[in-house]
This record gives sequence, structure tokens and C-alpha cells, in this order.
Amino acid sequence: MKTGHTHLFIPGPTNVPDDVRRAMNVPMQDQRAPDFGALTLGLIADLRPVFGTTSADVLLYPGSGTGAWEAALTNTLSPGDKVLMARHGQFSVLWVDMAQRLGFDVEVMDRPWGEGTPVAAFAERLAADKDHHIKGVFVTHNETATGVTSDVAGVRAALDACGHPALLFVDGVSSIASLPFRMDDWGVDLAVTGSQKGLMCPAGLGILAVSEKAVEASKTARSYRCYFDMGDMRRMMADGYFPYTPPAQLLHGMRAALDRIKAEGLDQVFARHHRLAEGVRKGVAAWGLTLCAAEPALWSDTVSAIRVPESVDARDVIRIAYARYNTSLGSGLSQLAGKVFRIGHLGDLNEGMVLAALGVAELSLHEAGYPISFGSGVGAAQAHFAHAAGSARMAAE
Amino acid sequence: MKTGHTHLFIPGPTNVPDDVRRAMNVPMQDQRAPDFGALTLGLIADLRPVFGTTSADVLLYPGSGTGAWEAALTNTLSPGDKVLMARHGQFSVLWVDMAQRLGFDVEVMDRPWGEGTPVAAFAERLAADKDHHIKGVFVTHNETATGVTSDVAGVRAALDACGHPALLFVDGVSSIASLPFRMDDWGVDLAVTGSQKGLMCPAGLGILAVSEKAVEASKTARSYRCYFDMGDMRRMMADGYFPYTPPAQLLHGMRAALDRIKAEGLDQVFARHHRLAEGVRKGVAAWGLTLCAAEPALWSDTVSAIRVPESVDARDVIRIAYARYNTSLGSGLSQLAGKVFRIGHLGDLNEGMVLAALGVAELSLHEAGYPISFGSGVGAAQAHFAHAAGSARMAAE
Amino acid sequence: MKTGHTHLFIPGPTNVPDDVRRAMNVPMQDQRAPDFGALTLGLIADLRPVFGTTSADVLLYPGSGTGAWEAALTNTLSPGDKVLMARHGQFSVLWVDMAQRLGFDVEVMDRPWGEGTPVAAFAERLAADKDHHIKGVFVTHNETATGVTSDVAGVRAALDACGHPALLFVDGVSSIASLPFRMDDWGVDLAVTGSQKGLMCPAGLGILAVSEKAVEASKTARSYRCYFDMGDMRRMMADGYFPYTPPAQLLHGMRAALDRIKAEGLDQVFARHHRLAEGVRKGVAAWGLTLCAAEPALWSDTVSAIRVPESVDARDVIRIAYARYNTSLGSGLSQLAGKVFRIGHLGDLNEGMVLAALGVAELSLHEAGYPISFGSGVGAAQAHFAHAAGSARMAAE
Amino acid sequence: MKTGHTHLFIPGPTNVPDDVRRAMNVPMQDQRAPDFGALTLGLIADLRPVFGTTSADVLLYPGSGTGAWEAALTNTLSPGDKVLMARHGQFSVLWVDMAQRLGFDVEVMDRPWGEGTPVAAFAERLAADKDHHIKGVFVTHNETATGVTSDVAGVRAALDACGHPALLFVDGVSSIASLPFRMDDWGVDLAVTGSQKGLMCPAGLGILAVSEKAVEASKTARSYRCYFDMGDMRRMMADGYFPYTPPAQLLHGMRAALDRIKAEGLDQVFARHHRLAEGVRKGVAAWGLTLCAAEPALWSDTVSAIRVPESVDARDVIRIAYARYNTSLGSGLSQLAGKVFRIGHLGDLNEGMVLAALGVAELSLHEAGYPISFGSGVGAAQAHFAHAAGSARMAAE
Repeated sequence: MKTGHTHLFIPGPTNVPDDVRRAMNVPMQDQRAPDFGALTLGLIADLRPVFGTTSADVLLYPGSGTGAWEAALTNTLSPGDKVLMARHGQFSVLWVDMAQRLGFDVEVMDRPWGEGTPVAAFAERLAADKDHHIKGVFVTHNETATGVTSDVAGVRAALDACGHPALLFVDGVSSIASLPFRMDDWGVDLAVTGSQKGLMCPAGLGILAVSEKAVEASKTARSYRCYFDMGDMRRMMADGYFPYTPPAQLLHGMRAALDRIKAEGLDQVFARHHRLAEGVRKGVAAWGLTLCAAEPALWSDTVSAIRVPESVDARDVIRIAYARYNTSLGSGLSQLAGKVFRIGHLGDLNEGMVLAALGVAELSLHEAGYPISFGSGVGAAQAHFAHAAGSARMAAE
Repeated sequence: MKTGHTHLFIPGPTNVPDDVRRAMNVPMQDQRAPDFGALTLGLIADLRPVFGTTSADVLLYPGSGTGAWEAALTNTLSPGDKVLMARHGQFSVLWVDMAQRLGFDVEVMDRPWGEGTPVAAFAERLAADKDHHIKGVFVTHNETATGVTSDVAGVRAALDACGHPALLFVDGVSSIASLPFRMDDWGVDLAVTGSQKGLMCPAGLGILAVSEKAVEASKTARSYRCYFDMGDMRRMMADGYFPYTPPAQLLHGMRAALDRIKAEGLDQVFARHHRLAEGVRKGVAAWGLTLCAAEPALWSDTVSAIRVPESVDARDVIRIAYARYNTSLGSGLSQLAGKVFRIGHLGDLNEGMVLAALGVAELSLHEAGYPISFGSGVGAAQAHFAHAAGSARMAAE
Repeated sequence: MKTGHTHLFIPGPTNVPDDVRRAMNVPMQDQRAPDFGALTLGLIADLRPVFGTTSADVLLYPGSGTGAWEAALTNTLSPGDKVLMARHGQFSVLWVDMAQRLGFDVEVMDRPWGEGTPVAAFAERLAADKDHHIKGVFVTHNETATGVTSDVAGVRAALDACGHPALLFVDGVSSIASLPFRMDDWGVDLAVTGSQKGLMCPAGLGILAVSEKAVEASKTARSYRCYFDMGDMRRMMADGYFPYTPPAQLLHGMRAALDRIKAEGLDQVFARHHRLAEGVRKGVAAWGLTLCAAEPALWSDTVSAIRVPESVDARDVIRIAYARYNTSLGSGLSQLAGKVFRIGHLGDLNEGMVLAALGVAELSLHEAGYPISFGSGVGAAQAHFAHAAGSARMAAE
Repeated sequence: MKTGHTHLFIPGPTNVPDDVRRAMNVPMQDQRAPDFGALTLGLIADLRPVFGTTSADVLLYPGSGTGAWEAALTNTLSPGDKVLMARHGQFSVLWVDMAQRLGFDVEVMDRPWGEGTPVAAFAERLAADKDHHIKGVFVTHNETATGVTSDVAGVRAALDACGHPALLFVDGVSSIASLPFRMDDWGVDLAVTGSQKGLMCPAGLGILAVSEKAVEASKTARSYRCYFDMGDMRRMMADGYFPYTPPAQLLHGMRAALDRIKAEGLDQVFARHHRLAEGVRKGVAAWGLTLCAAEPALWSDTVSAIRVPESVDARDVIRIAYARYNTSLGSGLSQLAGKVFRIGHLGDLNEGMVLAALGVAELSLHEAGYPISFGSGVGAAQAHFAHAAGSARMAAE
């Protein structure tokens, strides 16, 4: 029988803070009541800074982040439209697959898993697209499967350099609210996230922020759509209501989560994610292991995919952690199965939790056959945290 | 400031029982963990009898019932396919609208609001469709806007009478788990419901049960779809998993809700809904008011839409109940705005709650200008309940 | 199987509001942490106005209101001390019993159950006690068993009239936070309540407010005491801490409950209790039944004890309400068993709840053999509520 | 702002498991309802094996463990009775203090803090007490302040050796449900615990198990008592009811906690406590620090009090852990203030939690000035856990 706190270190759903859990435990209410809209409008107002926008429409779709992906596509593109996408991890693979199934003409650039969006190749391709056949360019901001953060600003610069009018779609599911995201600065037209990652709620809301340009595109886009139709949603949500019954308890949870983010301060949230991620990475290095991410510039502050040597099956590591130590680590997906395990370090986290994650990973690696020095990774992370704490003290003095 | 229990009598979301609320208050978990699938599979096994089926696939879509409508359509039909639908209330209006927006050729039969699915007219039309151009026939089992329950078995008989192969789509959002629903007996191919009605959970899951014939149709249907794709969902759900992150807390809530339904017994659930609905109707009659439903055969046991005289604005009744008595009544939708108020009497309910609903409605009708005799509706309902209790006692002796 | 909302109309524990329940659902915390004391101190500050005092010490004892009774006695009296008490209901009976068992010399005045504290007889006795042998005078402010509110101010006047120095002890368990209570104005020395009545929390905290004079008395009182010792408690609670582990979740619940009281306003709380109690009483009169309270001046606004005719066993009424209608009514205690049932109408309540209570009581009385006219009591209460609402509207215009 | 899971490692209140928290989140109910008693009776039945008794009465007092101490004393002793007690830590100090304040003649043996009950000295003193003036002998089974577990069986043997009839009182607040406790085998007459330690609930229930001999003693004991009177409590609790309003939500929590204990198995619970405690102790040794407990035979499996060198103030360690790392460590009480910090490792715990505790302690010790090697204690604990896991695997094969 499992005892004690369940250590959850998958890259989503993330740990839901106690006050968010409390806030969700509400009786049902009338979603058409005169005072219901205020709840939604408050969320939208507070989500905008999280997306790095002052003006984009933020839409809350009952569903998952995958649903918000679909909403982004079908509302702004017409069947047969050409779009430019890269594949370099399981979630970019899935987004390509979705675009193909929804009838778009996807030009795919494949890259080894562990690399990011190929900015230079995108730039070259866009510059070559003199007739602007490409209607959309896609960036997976944070590839959850590989722990890789891509350069959205670089893609924007590539578009601007050749004056390309394509819409810029960004999957921010595992980045938004955890990593700096600058929708307005980067000229992102459609930014997608879900409730269950940096926003620290259960799954159940797909969130889509749309630029004015994307709204304009939706007026002529001819993809069939109804549930995810942006027009209905924007019309209702202007007053804080929904075209169909929303998962109200999630809205209350989101309220509490956004209150937390405001209380901590977005910059502090980002700094904390970086500090804790760096602790994990110091630990991985001390183990003598490497990340899946091809180079430090791509390291993700929300999830680390850790390669194990061939003599070890990463699935064993995950299985042992789960069965014996009540700890959930992320698995290697698709071509990475057995080759990596992942530590999600986003959302509501602190140093002690990271030390537990590393400590349990060490026990599990040991039992899976990797000759680890107990405490090595934990100690490396501690040294980083102690250093950070020292710097914080000095800054405060 | 509002005090006391919030009296919720909208026809959904319905009152979530305390044990369901408790069951949902869980920490997040890994939706890919080896023991996760068992949770989902148990739900599916227990949902089947609720749909009245032993063999249909039951699919759980993160989203609302509206999403499950869309899943039913896009998975089994191709753009341009002809479908037969009736419009006789706001929710049948919306379903027609969805079918049109998703590119189908909708043949619509309009009926006055308050009537049900026009079985005879459907039968005639189907018999005339010798070449089987019609691919789908649609029934809104329970029109939530008007409180009308339609005759699904009659439509099946009409299809059978002329050997018509069209798929039978049924919207059971506000009927399933509250009214008898016999998917297998009625030969329903696609039955839709949501988590927030008879299933006594918050909104957030659209539930779709599909016959083997519907599964077969999905293999050739050419509507674009991805999020709601039945193939992905069936493949994953065969083991109890999802193609994307599910709202896990709702699954736990559904577990508790289905345990309640099993403990009470489906027949007892239906009998209770009938008894309480009859109490409401006795009360309405005692007030000298009438239902929107055109005739007793159409009366819904889950929601009553109550017509007010022209001298009264039903919106006032609802506003007063909400503002002064912490009570949510259902509003009149679209062409019924101001003309009806609705009492939802489905889900987790008992006699005392119905008496509170009627009692507050009397206070609100009075204040809205209707010359009511205080206690008249309550008393009529009580007489019915006392009679039912007496019968129950006699049966037990 | 019981379905629907559980209708709770016992005179405590009362219905806990949803936000109070949420507030209590906290993980454990260190009760010695540097920021813990602030929670307690905030409660004490906000409890003072509820007790009608600006200066009394308010002490929170883990335990029940009965424990706070004992704390009041043992901290201020010495074995053998003479005290003056009346018995006119089960709770005054129990307090007398406690005083006797703790070794005090109790002079008891017995009165028929349904009467209040005999102010005139107390005055006479006190005036005769020239040598001030009587060390304490006791008032059961609200006799929960009979629904009788006694005249504390009258007893204070009696003490003042003859310059008697006895301490004034008041049991406010079922009055404080629901009825006006003026500790300072009435010169109450020891006022007792519990968390589970007007304070809308679960049971688990006995609350004792003590005047400066009572504190002074505690310095020489020679009753043995430790757990309930006022000295330890006052010393620790001065900083917001406890001499032993407190039930922290109740403190968080109390915080939310006091926030509700502040938001509604104490005067509004009292007015609401009176309005709803009056509705109950109108209903009882319409049934042709009478209250246990001997005269209108004694009617309690927190609980009504309703006499049934000899042909009816009140236990049947309670049993039927509980078994068939998921409704808890209060029983007749001791000599009132079978002769009365009680409706608790204190705490977090509203009109709809009262109508449900009366409606279910009517059903239960009917089934227990009382020839009731269905809707009669409900209608009488509605008429009162409608009148009150009309007055409120006029006042607002 | 604090983020992430709050790491709670005080020796009580302990971490409340999620299912216990859920179980407590109930609406209020009538504590006199016909089905209420079954809840209490089930708890008592399942508490007996936890106390190691098949026949003792188990009484549940609303209050804290301190209240149950008082109940043990006042129900079985008369003022002036001589009792034998030892003082060797803050909680034995407090129990002595209580006994003195309640009027008993306490013969105290003082021992250095860190030692246990002086069994040999007790044996000698009892043997010398030919006339059996000593009415009670007291053992603090687990001294929470020093992390010392005493030898109850030894004291029983000492009593038996000289045929001494004194009652044997045992404070098991921080041992029962975590350490083996054999009330029947050890001939314990009064065993005390609280809800907030090994029983994994919030504080609010003092639990007292009484032997037949203790019940007999209560019939002649002349200490004044009422709230804690064993007679009332035993009479009511025989049917599962209480003499005053119980904290019902705690009873539901206890139900869930006992279900957990049954599911894990008491022996497994004890083995887990030992394994995790041993991990902590290995860590402490690796740091070069020592425990307060004077020798290994006294080491407590529920709490470790860790001595810091004179150059370090243990209060700094605790302050840093709390303020910077959202971690609560136990403080040094009274004469140990500043000299020890404590890690509570009882209740609902697992390996990852222990690693987090040690990891944060290392960070805090470092910042407080102790020259620690990061990861040293964590690594030592891991080695122990890996070894234990290996042994478990081998045993299973």
C-alpha cells in the first residue's frame, strides 16, 4: 500500500496547490446568473499578462490543450492551406498530425529529437516563399517530450525579415505561466496553453489567446468548426459567458491560481522555475548523465528529459519510482521510450520537492542498475540552491 | 449577502452530491500510470447500463455535451450528407445549427416549441426516402428548453418500418441517467450526454455511446476531425487511457456518482425522478399555471418549463428567486424568454428540495405580480408525496 | 438510499457554509510557527463584538461547549462555594449537575420546562443574601431544549439592585452569534459558547469569554484544574498560541465564519434569525400547534420546540423526517421526549430552507397521524416572508 | 511567498493523508441520529488492536491528548494519592506538573533529558513501597521532546516482581499507531493518545483506553470531574454516542485513517516507521551529529531530536527551513531550545519525504553555519533504503 505524499514530477498535470484545490470545491451554480460573467472576465484580465499581451483575446475552451490547438487551426485556416511546421519531439509530431488530419497542406521539417525549432531553416524557407503560399508558421515553444525550449522571437524575426504575412502559431502548453512568454513582443498570433501545467489547475480548460490579426483571419477561414468556433466563443466571452456549460469549478481554481501568480509576481515565478530547473540539471550532471536537449541554449526550465545509458531501461527507473517510492516521473515518449525519463519541474514547486525528486530518482536509477553515488545529484542541487540563497541574501542586504 | 444553502433548480449543472464532491478533491496523478486505466474502464462498464446498452462503446471526451454532439456528427458523416432533424426548442435549434455549420445538408422540420420529435412526419419522410439519401436521423430525447420528452422508440420503429439504414442520433444530455434510456432496444447508434446532468458531476465530460454500426460508419466518414476523433479515442480507451490529458478529478467524481446510482438502483432513480417531477407538476397545476409541454405524454421528468401569464415577466420571477432567496431557477431561452421559467428536477434531489423550490417559486411569483395562494403548490406536491409514501408503505407490508 | 441535500434543522451542530468547509480543508501546520499566532489573535479580535464586549478575554478551548462550562466554573470558584442556578430545561439541568459534581453548593430553583430564568425569584434571593454567600449566579441565556430565551439583563439588574458581587455566568451556547448578546452592557463575567451553533463551524471548540472580574477571581479560586486552566490559556493566547495542540482546521473555519458574520453585519444576522424564526412560528400556529415556550416573550429566535398533541408521538415525526425525507429535526429531551420536536433555525439559513423544514415537518406530522392541512404552515411562513420582503423593499426605496 | 508542498516534519500534528482529509469534509449531521452510533462503535473496534488490546474500553474525548491525560488521572485517583513519575523531557515534565496541579502527591524521579523511564529505580522504589502507598506509576512511552522510547514492559515487570497493585499509566501520544503498543501484554491500565500523531488526523480528539482495573478504580476515585468523567463517557459510548457534541468530522477522518492502517497492516506500519527512522538516523550520523537520546536502545522511531554543536543555534536551522524552504522542523523545547532540532517521522510518510526532510535540513544547517557536506545525510539514508528495498525484494522472491 502506498503511503505518504505522492511525489508528482510529470510535466503535467502538475501539483495543484492546496488553495487552488480548496477553491475548486464549490457547489454547482447557474452559469447564466447575472454575476457569473464577472468571474470569467477577471480570469481573462489576469491571464493576459501571463501570455505577455495587453490586447489579445483570451478564450477558455472546455477541453484539453489539444482542443485549443484545434481551435487555433480551424478558426484561422482553410482546408488545403499550406503551413510550415517542424517535428523534433512527440508533441510537435502530434501537432503536425493534427494539421494533416484537419486537411491542411503541411510542409514538415524533421529534426532530431532534442533539437528545437529550426529558426534558420524556417527563415530561409519563408524568404523563399515570395508568393506567401505559407499561411501559418508553427513553433512548439517548449517540447515537453524532450525538454527543449525553442526560440519564438527568432521565428518572428525571420517572418519580419522577409515581410512574410503568415500567422504565427505557438504551442505554449508547457511553457506559458512558467517561462517568459511575450505574445505581443514576439508577434504571436495564436498562443495555446492548458490549465494543467504552469497554471496549476487540473486539466479541463484549453486556453487560446488570439491576436487581432488572427481574429481577422477567422472571418474568412473556411474550415468547418462549431464546438471550437472562435466567433461564438468571443461573442459570449465578451461578457464572461460561454456558448455551452463551462467546468465552473476549474474557473474558480484558475482564479486562485492566478491570485497565487500575482502574489508571487510573474518575474519571481520565472526566476523560481529557472533556479529549480538548474538544480535538477546540476544533479543530472553529477550523476554523469546528459539531457536529451541538444545544447544548453535549448534547456527547458519546465521539464528535463534525462538520457540513461544503454545498459539501463528508463522504463525500469519510472516503474521503480512509482511502485516503490510513490513517485511519478515522466516517461520517454515514442522513439524515446526506455531511453529517457523526465522530471517535470513546473508549476507549484520548491527546493524540498526537487530534492525529493532527485533523491528518489537516485534510488530508482540504482535499483534499475545504474551505478550511482547516492546523494551525488541531491548534493549538486543543494550546492546550487545554497548559492542562490546566498545571492538572494546578499541582494537583500 | 447571501446566506444558507444555495437552492439550485436549473436543469444542469445539477446539485453535486457531497460524496461526489469529496471524491473529486484529489491531488493530480499521472494519467499514464499503469493503474490509471482501471479507473476509466470501471466507469465505462458502469455507464453502459445507464445508457441501456451491453455492447456499445462509451467514449469520454474532455469538453461539454456540445462537444460530444460534434463528435457524433463528424465521426460518422461526410460533408454534404443529408440528415433529418426537427426543431422544437432551443437545444434542437442548436443541434441543427451545428450540423449546418459542420457542412451537412440538414432537412429541418420545424414544430412549435413545446411539441416533441414529429414521429409520424419522420416516418413519412423516411418511407419516402427510397434511395436512402438520408444518412442520419436525429432525436432530442429531452428538450431541456421546453421540458419535453420525445419518443425515441417511435423513431426507431419508423426507421424499421421502411427498412431505412440511416444512423439514429439521440441527444440524451438531460435524460440519460434520469429517464429510462434503452440504447440497445431502441437501436440508437449515437447517444450523447454530459457529466453535469443526471450523472451529478460538474460539467467537463461529453459522453458519447456508439453502436457497432456507428463505429463502422466512422471508418468511411470523411469529415475532418482530430480532437474528437473516435478512432484515437476508442484505441486509447480500450485500455482506459486518453489521447490527451483527461480531467482526472471528474473521473473520480463519476466513479462516486455511478456508485450512488448503483446503490440506489437505476429503476429507483427513474421512479424517484418521476415522483418528484409529478410533485412539481401538481404544484404548477395548483397555481393555475400550465407547462410549456404540449400534452401530458410529453411531460419531462427532468425539467418543467412553466408558462406565466402575459401580465408577468418570467425573468422577474427568476431574478427575485436569485437575488432575494438564493435560488436558481432556469430561464426561458430564446423565444421563450420572459414567458417561462424552468424548474430542473433531475439528479440528486429529494422531496424537501422540491418543496423548497416550489415554496421559493411561490414567493417569487407573488412578488413578480402573480396572485398566488401561498402554500397552494407546495400543498399539492405534499399531497402527492404523502400518497406515494403511503403506497410505498403498503407495498412494503 | 438517501438522496439529495440533507436538511439539517437540529439546533446544533448547524449547517456549515460552503466557504467555511473549504477553509477547514487545510493541510496540517506547525502550531508553534512564528506566523501561527496571528490567526488566533484575529479570531479573538473578531469574536469580541460577537460577545458584545470590547475588553473581555476570549479563550478557545479544544473541546465542546460543555468543556467551556467546566472552565468557567473551576477557574473562578472553590469547592463548596454556593451558586444560584435555575432548572427549566435539559441544558440547565445539566449545568446544575456539573456544578454539583464539581463540588459546588448549588442552590437550585426548579421551574416548569418552558419557563425562563426566574428573574424575580433570583432578585429576591440575592437581596436576601446579605452576607454574599452566593459566589455565582447562572443564566441559561437560550435553553436549547425548550426554545426559551431568558433575560440576562434582568438578572444583572437584580444583582445591581442589591449590590451583590456574585459572578454572573451565562450559557450562550445556542444564542451567541445568533441573538444579541451584550456581555459588557449586561455585566456578564463568564460567557460560554461553542463553535457549532451560531458560529457555523463543526463542534470542537469551547469558547469562553471572561471579564476582568472573573480573571481576578481565578487568582484565588482553589478548584483543581489543569486542562481548562485559564492561567495557562490566557498566557499562551495573549500571543495567539495554545498550551496544547489546537484543532487548527477549526481555527481556519472560524476565520471564514467570522468573515461571513462581518460581511453580513451582526445586526443583519440577528434580524435574519428573527425573521426566519418568526416564519417558523407562524407556521406552527397555522398547524394549530403550540410552542413549549411558556409565553411569547420567551420565544427563542434560534430554536422552536413544538408540542404535539397526546395522540401523536413526536418521536415518530422525527423518525419519519429522518428516514423518509433526509431531514434531521431536533428531538424532545428527557421529560419532553415524545412530546415535542424541535426545529433549529440558527446559523447559516435562509427562507427556502425554512420552507423545506416546514414542508417536511408537515409531511411527517401527517404520516405520524396529525391531521394537518398540507401547505398551511408553509403558506403562513411565506406570507410572513413576503411581508418582510415588502417592508425591506419599501425601506430601500 | 511560499510555493510548493509544505514539508511538515514536526512530531505532530502529522501529515493528514488525502483520503483522510476528504473523509472529513462532510456536512454536519445529527449526533443523536439512530445510525450515528455505528460510526463510533466501528472506530472503537478498530482502535483496540492499535492499542494492543482486545478488551479495554476506548474512550474518545473531544479535546487534545492533554485532556485525555487529565481524564486518566481524575477518573482513577483521589486528591492526595501518591503517584510515581519520572521527568526526562518536556512532556514528562508537563505530566508531572498536571498531576501536581490536580492535587496528587507526586514522587518525581528526575533524569537527564535524553534518558528514558528509570526502570530499575522504579523497581527499587516499588519494591520498597510495602504498604502500597503508590497508587499510580507513570511511563512516558515516547518522550516527544527528546526522541526517547521507554520500556513499558520493564515497568510492568517491576510492578509484577513485587506484586504491586498500582495502576500503570502510559502516555502513548507519540507512539500509539506508530510503534508496537501492547496494552494487554504490558498490563497497561490507562493508555493515552491523540488523534494528531500516528492516527494521522487533525488534533481534536484525546483518546483514552482503560483496563477493567482502571474502570473499577474509577468507581471510588474522588477527584472532582465532569467533562472528562469516564462514567458518562462509557455509558454513552457503549452505544456509540457522546455525552456532548462530538467533532463529527474527526470521527469520519479517523474512520479513513483506521482503514488505511488496516489496509497497510499494523506490522507493516511499524516496520515502515522503523525503516524511515533508521534512514533519518543514518543521515544524522553521516552529518557527524548525534541524537539527544542517550543510547541506541532508546532511539525513537517516531521522532529524532538532533543535537547541534555549540557553534550553531538550532533555532536558526528551524527558522531557515521554515522561512526559505517551506519546511517545518520541530524545535527544541525548554532546556533544549537552541540545542536540538527535531525531525518528526511518524504517521503518513515515505522515503521521498524523508529525503526531502534531510535535504532541507542540510541546506538549513549549512546556512546556519554548520559545515555540512551536501548530500551526505541524504546519501546515507538512501543507502539504507536501497538495502531495505533489496532485502524486501529478496524476501519476496
